[in-house]
Amino acid sequence: MFAKHALTASMLALAVAFTALPVHAQGVPAGTKAAPRAQVVIQMSDADPAKWNLALNNARNLQTDVGAANIDVELVAYGPGIGMLKADSVVANRVEEALGAGVKVVACENTMRGQKLTRDDMLPKVDYVAAGVVELMRKQQQGWAYIRP
Amino acid sequence: MFAKHALTASMLALAVAFTALPVHAQGVPAGTKAAPRAQVVIQMSDADPAKWNLALNNARNLQTDVGAANIDVELVAYGPGIGMLKADSVVANRVEEALGAGVKVVACENTMRGQKLTRDDMLPKVDYVAAGVVELMRKQQQGWAYIRP
Amino acid sequence: MFAKHALTASMLALAVAFTALPVHAQGVPAGTKAAPRAQVVIQMSDADPAKWNLALNNARNLQTDVGAANIDVELVAYGPGIGMLKADSVVANRVEEALGAGVKVVACENTMRGQKLTRDDMLPKVDYVAAGVVELMRKQQQGWAYIRP
Repeated sequence: MFAKHALTASMLALAVAFTALPVHAQGVPAGTKAAPRAQVVIQMSDADPAKWNLALNNARNLQTDVGAANIDVELVAYGPGIGMLKADSVVANRVEEALGAGVKVVACENTMRGQKLTRDDMLPKVDYVAAGVVELMRKQQQGWAYIRP
Repeated sequence: MFAKHALTASMLALAVAFTALPVHAQGVPAGTKAAPRAQVVIQMSDADPAKWNLALNNARNLQTDVGAANIDVELVAYGPGIGMLKADSVVANRVEEALGAGVKVVACENTMRGQKLTRDDMLPKVDYVAAGVVELMRKQQQGWAYIRP
Repeated sequence: MFAKHALTASMLALAVAFTALPVHAQGVPAGTKAAPRAQVVIQMSDADPAKWNLALNNARNLQTDVGAANIDVELVAYGPGIGMLKADSVVANRVEEALGAGVKVVACENTMRGQKLTRDDMLPKVDYVAAGVVELMRKQQQGWAYIRP
């Protein structure tokens, strides 16, 4: 009776050990076949509207080429780039389009404090992070790719 | 009899669990000794010839310092950076040198379509990808480092 | 007797399989909870003092938000960015502050050779690497995040 339980438990242990493989394999970088989920964080730290359009083009092209359902795209605006997400931004329409298409768009509260901006000054549907640069670090360390337009 | 099998199976399960360690360890970033193959993807998305020269310097320095045989270097030109790889590029000679030295140089077909460029407009030995920004993402998620000059 | 041992061994195997998870999870990017040590390498390759200040702001914000003891921050100056670390740098005070706060600051000896700079021309407490771009690659391939201000 015990012996049979023991055998079953052993098999379970083996199953667990093998099942764990694909989970970890996501973290193995070079020379492997398993493709992780497409995930990209885009930095926007420039005050230049031409760069804002490039960033939005990058987000759109990523979604178009991989399929919007197959990719996570997050755009992080901070420092001199924060103006991209202000209510009066010259790319307000395009930011709203990106949000509607499933791009996550976040503003840095550190930067906002420094520039005396409140959430009322920002586009309505953006999200917030305490520190944009920390968000960029965390995402990369979680396996997201990084693009700096 | 069952009991002995059970013990053997348990030992096997333990062995499997431990054997799995080195395999996964390839994905563990900090504090490990195992060095992955040197692999770098260089983004070129600026229309600025000074940046093109910096990118080519970076590629050359990477090959010089690590040894060209020990490193994969890929340069991805897209968006405003596509001009770097046009047949009339001011850095045409240097791009050809880089290609000769084993640097992979790719142009973004999305960008080319947008700028009504065909392969006939481009330097002869460059390669092509459907979308430069997707290439930059994929390489990073496969463990390549990213440099944006 | 054997049967009981077998059961114990099986349980141990299960425990090992699960215990192994956090170890590997450091390398697993998406969808996991385990956070690797916060590590960021910041590229400084521009000759622009405004960018030098942004880079130093980034370093400070990273330390403030994560806690200086919980993060490794390394700033790599090379190419046109090398001026940031010269003895007469306009941000000399801020570089010294960053060094005092535990930021590692390194200058590229390749670049220094090219610009005929010796260590006597540089700020006293900076460190040196043979090639800045190689350092940026190595750190990323060791799991560090990358920020290009």
